Amino acid sequence: MTAFNDLMAFQRETEALAQISGRLGWDQETVMPRGAVNQRAEELAAIEAVLHARRSDPRVAEWLENAHADTEVGQAQLREIRRTYERTVKVPADLATAIARVTSAAQGKWAQARADEDVPAFLPVLEEVVALKREEGAALAQGGDVYDALVEDYEPYTTAAEIADIFDALRPRLVALRAAVLDRPSPAGVTGTFDEAAQMKLTKKLAETFGYDLNRGRVDKAVHPFCSGSGDDVRVTTRTSETDPFNCFYSTIHEVGHACYEQGIDPAYALTPLGQGVSMGVHESQSRIYENQLGRSRAFTGWLFRQMTDTFGDFGIADEQAFYAAVNRVHNGYIRTEADEVQYNLHVMLRFDLERALMSGDLLVQDLEAAWNDRFHADFGYAVDKPSNGCLQDVHWSVGLFGYFPTYSLGNVYAGCLYQALRAAVPGLDEQLAQGDTAAATGWLREHVQQHGGLYAPRELIRRASGMEPGPEPLLAYLEEKFGALYGL
Amino acid sequence: MTAFNDLMAFQRETEALAQISGRLGWDQETVMPRGAVNQRAEELAAIEAVLHARRSDPRVAEWLENAHADTEVGQAQLREIRRTYERTVKVPADLATAIARVTSAAQGKWAQARADEDVPAFLPVLEEVVALKREEGAALAQGGDVYDALVEDYEPYTTAAEIADIFDALRPRLVALRAAVLDRPSPAGVTGTFDEAAQMKLTKKLAETFGYDLNRGRVDKAVHPFCSGSGDDVRVTTRTSETDPFNCFYSTIHEVGHACYEQGIDPAYALTPLGQGVSMGVHESQSRIYENQLGRSRAFTGWLFRQMTDTFGDFGIADEQAFYAAVNRVHNGYIRTEADEVQYNLHVMLRFDLERALMSGDLLVQDLEAAWNDRFHADFGYAVDKPSNGCLQDVHWSVGLFGYFPTYSLGNVYAGCLYQALRAAVPGLDEQLAQGDTAAATGWLREHVQQHGGLYAPRELIRRASGMEPGPEPLLAYLEEKFGALYGL
Repeated sequence: MTAFNDLMAFQRETEALAQISGRLGWDQETVMPRGAVNQRAEELAAIEAVLHARRSDPRVAEWLENAHADTEVGQAQLREIRRTYERTVKVPADLATAIARVTSAAQGKWAQARADEDVPAFLPVLEEVVALKREEGAALAQGGDVYDALVEDYEPYTTAAEIADIFDALRPRLVALRAAVLDRPSPAGVTGTFDEAAQMKLTKKLAETFGYDLNRGRVDKAVHPFCSGSGDDVRVTTRTSETDPFNCFYSTIHEVGHACYEQGIDPAYALTPLGQGVSMGVHESQSRIYENQLGRSRAFTGWLFRQMTDTFGDFGIADEQAFYAAVNRVHNGYIRTEADEVQYNLHVMLRFDLERALMSGDLLVQDLEAAWNDRFHADFGYAVDKPSNGCLQDVHWSVGLFGYFPTYSLGNVYAGCLYQALRAAVPGLDEQLAQGDTAAATGWLREHVQQHGGLYAPRELIRRASGMEPGPEPLLAYLEEKFGALYGL
Repeated sequence: MTAFNDLMAFQRETEALAQISGRLGWDQETVMPRGAVNQRAEELAAIEAVLHARRSDPRVAEWLENAHADTEVGQAQLREIRRTYERTVKVPADLATAIARVTSAAQGKWAQARADEDVPAFLPVLEEVVALKREEGAALAQGGDVYDALVEDYEPYTTAAEIADIFDALRPRLVALRAAVLDRPSPAGVTGTFDEAAQMKLTKKLAETFGYDLNRGRVDKAVHPFCSGSGDDVRVTTRTSETDPFNCFYSTIHEVGHACYEQGIDPAYALTPLGQGVSMGVHESQSRIYENQLGRSRAFTGWLFRQMTDTFGDFGIADEQAFYAAVNRVHNGYIRTEADEVQYNLHVMLRFDLERALMSGDLLVQDLEAAWNDRFHADFGYAVDKPSNGCLQDVHWSVGLFGYFPTYSLGNVYAGCLYQALRAAVPGLDEQLAQGDTAAATGWLREHVQQHGGLYAPRELIRRASGMEPGPEPLLAYLEEKFGALYGL
């Protein structure tokens, strides 16, 4: 047991250092003085260098060779430590350094190009990023599929082919649903202004309503909503807009879904490889089921309507049903992060297909804008009007996040499966949500998904929790039923 | 130059990691969720282990052997890296671990004993701490003076004997001044309540008035005021009391003195051993000269009186002169951190003599309370009424900070020297301060003290800046003149 214990003790320090690195990210986006940005970059580089050295420390290989575990948990720990070690040592140090350097510069060039609506200004550095990520993927894949190897960083134990199977079934029915819905009259939105301090007060109440433990977390404002940290220090951010309170409230519920996942993991896994969400896809399944299947349900929006009326008075919405329609309004738009439930996955699948082609070499960077615009027109029925509404809208590619996009839609697919099982397991769900009571729903998710942390591979976890092979059918049925009823299809 | 450059690159990462460790301390005292305290302890231990390993890395010894520098700055860098390396490797790892473990437990026991007014409950663990610190001091001193070796962590390049020479001259005249002042009628204090949000608004204005750059810093509330960080991320905290606005304002000015020192260091020294204040004593000289010689001057308090009247209306003080007297009111009390300018150093010197005797073995832990109470009565003229007002009031000894206390009074002594030189260099100082204009004063301090960071040893720095050998006479003359005039002596 000595090698196992030594390895776990070493790993525990590594995990603690990784938590620190994450906390610096939170600090940077919330409280850091603006003038500290260059110094912070050096601080982050220093701790990343420490983490890289520990993750590729030759002692880890020795310990792994000699360590044995009899329990399922111990074996899962070894599996995850081995996976991280092998990935880390496969990438040459020079390549890792080059990626860090180029993506750091590329992010600034992307932001400038987006502001200038200037795709050609971005393409040279994107070419560099694509070339380096293909090289990294090849080093990781060792003869296997380059893109699969990159996906593994975000969604381990799956392949792009498996993902494509699901997406190929999703896309035509979403395109059809979108067209049918947008053929109908659009429901009214809210009017007036909403005090931002009052939004933050209600948003904290919402966070607690969904089971977020503020004794082990906090809610702050930031430019981009996010969740950060694991274990006993899991923080979320949200944002406010004077005219659009839903932006604040549903950003909060979404991030609280992520946060409850982290807070709900078995404390025995704290500061181990199992002590955090198992994949981005499963993470997104939690944030999306909190935000959409629960938070945008007819039952819960009834409760939220009463809360908002108490807080803000009249805001131009007559009753609960009209509020439900306003919250779930489907509307044309170019921007992924502003998309509704019907269209969101179309945005994601577009990016999945394009980035997969970039990594395979089937698509050249110089042809990216045309490919984006063609695909957008095919799925959405109108043309991209400017690059900031098209291929320059997301930061991901500039910072090298190839393989990340599909996890957004995988999360929705997983959420569909989980929601079907949850409804069967909790017959009185709507009555509870109508009272602002999410305890049974979040309790079920904690028991069946969240507590397990990294113990099971993502698809196995969803299979165990939902009792079905993860697939697109439950999500599609949910969307077609919900929006069919809302829009009288 | 390779060894020098390699060493400096390695050191730069170490300094960046040390900044991170400091930021975690800030986080813990301001924004950390309460439930994260145990996880945070592990995070801090992990980064401290990394720092310890780097500071005692055998490569540092090799680089030091081969590195040469021709410039004064380069030689100072090598001097400070060598000093830290040699100190780190002198302390056996087992001993360092034992000190970390025992002081962590001792802090909790001290807090409980203080709450319970139970000195005997604290003494066993204090015995352990004292024994371990004597062992550490002996390991560092290698035959030299144990207490001197501990002082070096906070005030390098000085000895307890040199400090005692200064303190021995200070003490009788402060005792006499104290007795004379307290024989006179006490001036009136403020009355009423002071909105705490308005205090924070005015406190930020005060911070900027003293030259604090909020683009590279921030002001938050915390239980204890402190300053943390170096370079471009230097943060201060303050506190508010509804009935005592001076607590907030003068805590802020004090911490801003520390912060301006860090912000004022030559940017070329950032993330090097020279990139932070050279000693606790010099640091305290900056915080105290901002707080007292400048902030509590007749001229500046006139401006502050007008600011406070604008903010809070009438608060029971008739005019500027009465306000000046209220700000500088001398009053009986047991607590060091609440002491006025006249009595503060008496509190410090009491601790210096006692801890020096504890380290030499001349005083046994079991006799500490009696020794404290005797000395307090001798200097203050009345008896300690309970342990929380006596030997249990400070956290320092429980966490092993032996050698730290004297730097508080050394800072006041240095501030006295600097203020004498500053007045000579800036003839129109009072007229400027009366307008709330500190630019010439803080500019002089930046040029003569702050910019140099760790380049010069503390006493050499004060000698260069003030043109005199650091000694107690300027501080005594300042105090006797100021309080003599205020109290009509």
